[in-house]
Amino acid sequence: MRTGIRASIACCIASLICPTAWAYDAIVKKERFDLQGDFTTINNKAIKNVKIGYETYGTLSANKDNVILLCHGSLNNSHFAGKYDPSDLHPGVWDHVIGPGNILDTDKYFVIASDSLTNFRVKDPHVITTGPASPDPDNGGQRYAMRFPIVTIADFVEIQKRLLDSLGIRKLHAVMGASMGGMQALEWAARYPDMVARAIAVTAQAEQGPYDIELKDLVVSIIELDPNWSKGDYYGKKEPEDGLAVALKSFRMTVTSYAPLDRQYDRKWADGHKNPAESLQNKFTVQADIDQAVHQEAKIGDANSWIYIAQALNLFQLGHGNNLRGGMAKIKAKVLFIPSKSDLLMFPDFSRQAFSVLKSMGKNVDIFELQGDGGHAESANIDQAEIKLREFLN
Amino acid sequence: MRTGIRASIACCIASLICPTAWAYDAIVKKERFDLQGDFTTINNKAIKNVKIGYETYGTLSANKDNVILLCHGSLNNSHFAGKYDPSDLHPGVWDHVIGPGNILDTDKYFVIASDSLTNFRVKDPHVITTGPASPDPDNGGQRYAMRFPIVTIADFVEIQKRLLDSLGIRKLHAVMGASMGGMQALEWAARYPDMVARAIAVTAQAEQGPYDIELKDLVVSIIELDPNWSKGDYYGKKEPEDGLAVALKSFRMTVTSYAPLDRQYDRKWADGHKNPAESLQNKFTVQADIDQAVHQEAKIGDANSWIYIAQALNLFQLGHGNNLRGGMAKIKAKVLFIPSKSDLLMFPDFSRQAFSVLKSMGKNVDIFELQGDGGHAESANIDQAEIKLREFLN
Repeated sequence: MRTGIRASIACCIASLICPTAWAYDAIVKKERFDLQGDFTTINNKAIKNVKIGYETYGTLSANKDNVILLCHGSLNNSHFAGKYDPSDLHPGVWDHVIGPGNILDTDKYFVIASDSLTNFRVKDPHVITTGPASPDPDNGGQRYAMRFPIVTIADFVEIQKRLLDSLGIRKLHAVMGASMGGMQALEWAARYPDMVARAIAVTAQAEQGPYDIELKDLVVSIIELDPNWSKGDYYGKKEPEDGLAVALKSFRMTVTSYAPLDRQYDRKWADGHKNPAESLQNKFTVQADIDQAVHQEAKIGDANSWIYIAQALNLFQLGHGNNLRGGMAKIKAKVLFIPSKSDLLMFPDFSRQAFSVLKSMGKNVDIFELQGDGGHAESANIDQAEIKLREFLN
Repeated sequence: MRTGIRASIACCIASLICPTAWAYDAIVKKERFDLQGDFTTINNKAIKNVKIGYETYGTLSANKDNVILLCHGSLNNSHFAGKYDPSDLHPGVWDHVIGPGNILDTDKYFVIASDSLTNFRVKDPHVITTGPASPDPDNGGQRYAMRFPIVTIADFVEIQKRLLDSLGIRKLHAVMGASMGGMQALEWAARYPDMVARAIAVTAQAEQGPYDIELKDLVVSIIELDPNWSKGDYYGKKEPEDGLAVALKSFRMTVTSYAPLDRQYDRKWADGHKNPAESLQNKFTVQADIDQAVHQEAKIGDANSWIYIAQALNLFQLGHGNNLRGGMAKIKAKVLFIPSKSDLLMFPDFSRQAFSVLKSMGKNVDIFELQGDGGHAESANIDQAEIKLREFLN
């Protein structure tokens, strides 16, 4: 069944419930949060001058109890809804579920999202982050490169906590995210059990297993093959854009599935006159298109930052105490898992297993499986879970 | 359910049927076939001095009607059973199903397998192949490198046909293979419909779709990142071993699945004293083990040959006439598809779709799904299909 069909059905059902505007039409602005004093990682390394970007949608209530925190995926940023200016072609990734009367109802909720530490998109003018591409104040303002300390998902949560503290927010109605964002949601629930009422983990897992560790290892190995990577000291020189592009190609294959590519490309040639049987330079359309897309994406990203993100993911185990069950036991929030049936990166089994363990612990936990064939990227079609999400958030 | 448990059940059932020896215990020898005259590819390129290796198990009957041809997968070779000498630790990949009284019963059948053109394992002393690493007789014996003509799965079949011709074989009781070998089996059935009585396609597909084309593109892109690849002209110089090792890492992730890695590794550190949270040089065991394995494997392989194999795969469409249904329509053989439920490379849907189309054409076609969690590599446990295979071969 095609996603489009399902999406229209979901819209029909939704229109009966919410007659108001569907998407978030407002112009948004990336705000900047400067952390006061040094930040100390959970592994006890100090980082000076930490700054991150954040966005908000909706209005914070007088008693600050209507907050939904959104956490972004590994190569994304805090742009979840709206546009930066009227001509902006790329509204935030969950724009279609955020807005007045929508699933994440900005008439009711104050939705907030922040850029992660070591964010990949360092050359995106709308991203504010601190990581290996940042100047090291203890080293004459030279870029950190691989001298930046290792950070974790728990550190991402700690920075978000400081941001919320600065806004006087002491309770989260919900914390929600997909992929790495879903891991942050779970970590929030374990780390601040009295603060988090609801945690929603979309296409996520409770700990990174060997399969996903090795997929990250592959990404890092590819980057390191590019001689321009130069052990990370490439700032101000030619950057490892080719290696980054191939790493992005690898990542793309793990976040999609075969069905979307089948529909889009089939076996068409990039140039109808250039048969791939005649020359290795003659490509299929899928090859040419993805090559172009990943080179484009490589231009806004930073190789070292991705290496740090990869390590943060690899180190993830809910609760960060080398004890997954111990981490899970701390959770007081209602938890909702939303795996994608066709996910080839964070397989639905991972969510089902975490669901079962929490259930066996007597926790308030639920699960809803996205049925599309879009793989890990099916999380973009989160509106499939509309009824479940509205019920869960109420 | 663990593969080991299933394998033992299969053995129990099998032992009721066949009280004789289980594996193929004989010492085997790689034979050499030198093709007479030039070989002309299906795309009309001539290749001189084509030679390939082959192995046989069992005895050819007087009227030469007991032949089972086995075709190997993309990075394998024709070593399917037995050992090269008594101390050999690596019997052939389907050794456990080949032998007297076994599924591929060497008391009844003459089993033959040949090394492909452009075989990957050019430095393996037991592999004989012709490809980009071979000397070009028209160029003073210099290696072909990227000047070797593009070859296809259909060409692999044509070479096998010449080999069988040289042995006076005019009929195939069956042709069988996994992955690229399964595609050859299907191509055989379409190309020589009156010669092939049965075709068995294990973890294969009837044409290469965009998802698998892009996975091959990824492998090639990784190799090309290594500066030692030098556009393929690396023979006699430092070879692109690092690029090849990372490409093999990528390939490994597509042929396995998460479950075998979960069982083998969990989140253990490579060195119990070196916490990956402390340094990017500190690895998890899964990373260290696979790194070592792929560097080992890279030493016996040839990067250019893999690029040619990748292109041969990408060009595969049953019948090689830009008309999949037309290719399928030519088949007269009984066809058996054996997909693996957990396959992340050639998804079981691909086999199911091909099965359905052949069925709708009124062909004699059957399907049996391997239930293990080993992914594409589940084809090693082909003995799960024992009852189906014995019935199909009879």
